[in-house]
Amino acid sequence: MRFDIITIFPGFFDSPLDYGILKRARTAGLVEVATHDLRGFTHDRHRTVDDRPFGGGEGMVLKPEPIYDAVASLGILPKAERQREKETIILLSAQGRPFTQAVAQELAATERVVIICGRYEGVDERVNEMLCDREISIGDYVLSGGELAAAVIIDAVVRLLPGALGNPDSSRFESFGVEDVPKKTDSADGPPRSTYGAGGLLDYPHYTRPAEFRGIAIPDALRGGDHEAIRRWRRRMALEKTLRNRPDLLDRIEISEEDRETLAKLRLNTEQEA
Amino acid sequence: MRFDIITIFPGFFDSPLDYGILKRARTAGLVEVATHDLRGFTHDRHRTVDDRPFGGGEGMVLKPEPIYDAVASLGILPKAERQREKETIILLSAQGRPFTQAVAQELAATERVVIICGRYEGVDERVNEMLCDREISIGDYVLSGGELAAAVIIDAVVRLLPGALGNPDSSRFESFGVEDVPKKTDSADGPPRSTYGAGGLLDYPHYTRPAEFRGIAIPDALRGGDHEAIRRWRRRMALEKTLRNRPDLLDRIEISEEDRETLAKLRLNTEQEA
Repeated sequence: MRFDIITIFPGFFDSPLDYGILKRARTAGLVEVATHDLRGFTHDRHRTVDDRPFGGGEGMVLKPEPIYDAVASLGILPKAERQREKETIILLSAQGRPFTQAVAQELAATERVVIICGRYEGVDERVNEMLCDREISIGDYVLSGGELAAAVIIDAVVRLLPGALGNPDSSRFESFGVEDVPKKTDSADGPPRSTYGAGGLLDYPHYTRPAEFRGIAIPDALRGGDHEAIRRWRRRMALEKTLRNRPDLLDRIEISEEDRETLAKLRLNTEQEA
Repeated sequence: MRFDIITIFPGFFDSPLDYGILKRARTAGLVEVATHDLRGFTHDRHRTVDDRPFGGGEGMVLKPEPIYDAVASLGILPKAERQREKETIILLSAQGRPFTQAVAQELAATERVVIICGRYEGVDERVNEMLCDREISIGDYVLSGGELAAAVIIDAVVRLLPGALGNPDSSRFESFGVEDVPKKTDSADGPPRSTYGAGGLLDYPHYTRPAEFRGIAIPDALRGGDHEAIRRWRRRMALEKTLRNRPDLLDRIEISEEDRETLAKLRLNTEQEA
């Protein structure tokens, strides 16, 4: 898979591309990331990439020509002829559709993704119309530009590529020396983790050694090897965390009768505390 | 304002901190960003920061001690005594509450923000309970770690600090040579931009010169100096973009009678196209 980033700050990406999963995936040849300096596609002495908005108002707007020329230089097919399952162009802006794990999965099935990093007040809308398959926002906050959003998308997509995480155990042991490991209660047939990002609940809380840290012990349910007790505890805690931090997710998932009872009790506790 | 980032990848932040608004704000002394290597707070030969989860399951969990020691080294008050309007500790995880522009504004009023970057399966929950005021997620997607999320939060917060954007016009002209500028229809009393991020609609589309680019002209409404026509066009386009990309926002805002009529027409058009 290949990413091409069009940006006024190509050097911005130097260090984020050089750590963790992304570095490993690049070294292993699973992904290639190229940055392209938008100013290299200007033709004036000042290398102007922006201009004032028609109709007035504050701020500057990225001009269409340099972006068009930058995309043209990549040999991507025009929008009408492009198969967006194979190669796709994304505009990053605060006005886009939300980036979600489902979008990450779609992009991970693509061979080539071109990312245009918006900046300032915005990007001439003709860039969006003429070139882009998607306009994406990574969240409901204002960033100074699309560069961080591009890095977020690349990270979320690359970790979905087959082989990027490696063998989860081996790649972890490779990067982090582990001297003494608590007994693995189970890994193959242990309790499944909740499915955050795939329409599920938030993940349950995790604990590792020491079993007691500064006077706070891990929950009793996790001390024994009773899989059913662990499963019930994890499900209840996932429901509690979701209720507290993301109640909106509860409307979107199917919940069992057991979940319904747990939620009723959790809501009662919350009311009593309040 | 000061940010302290606790991470296993301190070098990750080198280049993102060195561009644009963040670089300017750091140079101007408006913000200080320090990174702290979590491995510097381990005491074993392998500098182990993670361990297996109690209760079984895949993946590794960040241990509580190194994080606790890293926070202790920063001289932050314990959670019970801390005034979180002045100094606050954030845990970044996929299980957190959503980061929004409102949270960015709250953080921008804080003097010191400590950010703990989660990694792997998660962070021992006692870190959250004992140390953190907030658990935050930047969006509904899975990242390989909290580093990019930390950079996103810092960018969104710093651009809200007084002086960070400088005089919007001057700071823009400073960074980008502008040779020939279309007449500024208005800036002081021109049509206001829509208020994305503050509970409003998505922003309307922007256009800059050339008025015609590869056969596509800018909208007629933007050609003249008729402020009322420009205002109406921008409002309609903001409604259209919001309806297309973020219909959820329409339920959260107050809309005028004029907006209601525009939306009805837009919905009708969409149905006819479908």
